[in-house]
Amino acid sequence: MSFSFDLLGQDGAARAGMLHTAHGDVPTPTFMAVGTAGTVKAMTADAVRATGAKIVLGNTYHLMLRPGAERVARLGGLHKMMDWPGPILTDSGGFQVMSLAKLRKMDETGVTFRSHIDGSAHHLTPERSMEIQYLLDATITMVLDECTKFPATHEEAAKSMRLSTRWAKRSRDAFVARDGYGQFGIVQGNVYKDLREESAAALRELNFEGYAIGGLAVGEGQEMMYAMLDITAPLLPTGKPRYLMGVGTPDDLLGSVARGVDMFDCVMPTRAGRTARGFTSHGVFNLRNARFIDDGTPLDENCGCLCCTRHTRAYLHHLFRAQEILGPMLLTMHNLTYYQRLMQDGRVAILAGNYDEYCQATRAGWEEAKHG
Amino acid sequence: MSFSFDLLGQDGAARAGMLHTAHGDVPTPTFMAVGTAGTVKAMTADAVRATGAKIVLGNTYHLMLRPGAERVARLGGLHKMMDWPGPILTDSGGFQVMSLAKLRKMDETGVTFRSHIDGSAHHLTPERSMEIQYLLDATITMVLDECTKFPATHEEAAKSMRLSTRWAKRSRDAFVARDGYGQFGIVQGNVYKDLREESAAALRELNFEGYAIGGLAVGEGQEMMYAMLDITAPLLPTGKPRYLMGVGTPDDLLGSVARGVDMFDCVMPTRAGRTARGFTSHGVFNLRNARFIDDGTPLDENCGCLCCTRHTRAYLHHLFRAQEILGPMLLTMHNLTYYQRLMQDGRVAILAGNYDEYCQATRAGWEEAKHG
Repeated sequence: MSFSFDLLGQDGAARAGMLHTAHGDVPTPTFMAVGTAGTVKAMTADAVRATGAKIVLGNTYHLMLRPGAERVARLGGLHKMMDWPGPILTDSGGFQVMSLAKLRKMDETGVTFRSHIDGSAHHLTPERSMEIQYLLDATITMVLDECTKFPATHEEAAKSMRLSTRWAKRSRDAFVARDGYGQFGIVQGNVYKDLREESAAALRELNFEGYAIGGLAVGEGQEMMYAMLDITAPLLPTGKPRYLMGVGTPDDLLGSVARGVDMFDCVMPTRAGRTARGFTSHGVFNLRNARFIDDGTPLDENCGCLCCTRHTRAYLHHLFRAQEILGPMLLTMHNLTYYQRLMQDGRVAILAGNYDEYCQATRAGWEEAKHG
Repeated sequence: MSFSFDLLGQDGAARAGMLHTAHGDVPTPTFMAVGTAGTVKAMTADAVRATGAKIVLGNTYHLMLRPGAERVARLGGLHKMMDWPGPILTDSGGFQVMSLAKLRKMDETGVTFRSHIDGSAHHLTPERSMEIQYLLDATITMVLDECTKFPATHEEAAKSMRLSTRWAKRSRDAFVARDGYGQFGIVQGNVYKDLREESAAALRELNFEGYAIGGLAVGEGQEMMYAMLDITAPLLPTGKPRYLMGVGTPDDLLGSVARGVDMFDCVMPTRAGRTARGFTSHGVFNLRNARFIDDGTPLDENCGCLCCTRHTRAYLHHLFRAQEILGPMLLTMHNLTYYQRLMQDGRVAILAGNYDEYCQATRAGWEEAKHG
């Protein structure tokens, strides 16, 4: 089967679609749970499936260092290793080399760095990143790019974006096409309209199976991010999926879907789940807060996850106070379920033509916690 | 329904039975997973059920301090709080007061101590221990006793055992009898035959629903523990369940069942699961060991748990190296499943009259790891 995207409905700029891949279909808009090191933290693969997730993300940087891409390949690939036969998207490794690795040095060929784990030296090029993602057996491979720092001058942003464009071309050349597998280009250009336009135009010529919007959610704020989405999304082919990298809060997701984004990933629901913050239809709660000590109600009475149907806020509070592993386990389950439902219900609303009303009602629900 | 025990078969001194309780039946011999603070560490209740566990243990000391017995009662009891409608045995709190609390002071009335969590002062008496276990809604309540230190002189052991006997009488008087609920006395007497006899005789007069053997596995060694079991088990009523507290390794379990024990609890399989040690039909493995880095086989090919059917030793090794929570989750699942199967298969062997052969074959399997 071929890797393809069906656009099934639109409501304003918001899109509902279906992504077809070698490893299964993904209804969009969709949120990809982050499985950095070959596991969505604190979750079994069964538990991830139970959240409604259809696609997960793996991090090339982490996996290339440990357990190693060749080793994952020998073990049958990332799908088999982590018990996730469904679609997996892997990033290129570039973003995390710049944020985590030591002694980084960029040049035209790629980036040289030392591992933050054991100090070992590595050279990541577009070609090696594609090879690693091939070894991992990623359903969706991302091009290697440089995520421009924020803020950056127009000159800095242009130079960085053009390097990413040259790397995108090399990444495209190095990608091994296989039925049902795809590769996404990444639009850069910082907060400059002309650079976003130049980047998108160059990437469209390479005819990727999908397009990501990179370099956002790096400190520019939601208003600027939305402005960049308003500029960038219309530059992308309507018949290909659009992925906003590293975003975001539930509110960011609603607003970005409204601007034409189909796919998201973010550590927020999983990281929050480990630090006692629960996303609910009533807003965000810190389960360590003493107000929950005798609260015998479910975390979110509108949620059907195991955490909400079997346990109380008081129990979650107890688990986090007692530093029990089950606290992060249950709250991660819930948060991922909440994110999935946010996207599923959004999809239904788009197809029904009432996405604006859906967003208004959802945001009104979040206000309750602030006033409660 | 009444709390009762059916002895269904014997092979030598080894017994196969069925315990009937208000919260369900428990085939014996059985291993009780330890759910110290209202959670079997790193396990959802569904995952505990999937291991084959029929009864779990809660720790009165931990629960009285956090979240507090009255609070658990307000939340509907421990069963509801931890999503475990099955039988729950709670200990009396005495053992952990002596091992964990600060500024302990014993007298005839009970023990005064300060919480290891927040330094708050508490006075635990037989009556208060029974009240706490009532508030927790324990299916099986344990009497408050003093676990005599090891080694102890005959005089020390006698004095301690007689205090425990007086506390057992007070615990029995304070116990609120309810259909399907039971209370267990605890035989003490250290390593002295005459004291074990005196303790057992006094407890039998109180007609408990079951009898525990306490004060073992505290440093006396397996040989001495077995000698004490050989002395103590025959002193107990054949028609009541026998519980060996805080034991032990898989080998300890096999040998203790052979000496007439029906029930066990121990943190070993759960604690080992969090520290990368896996119990298997081939012996104990340390999954951090580099020998597993490329090992694409299941941890135990004879095991049907999620860990062994979906994942490899190499993946477990990776998870522990990367300090991923999923490592402890999967290995705890496996270890508890291994302990459950050890008891289930032992029960089948007892009923078939070949328990000795079963133990020999099981122990022979453990040798493989040592020579492999």
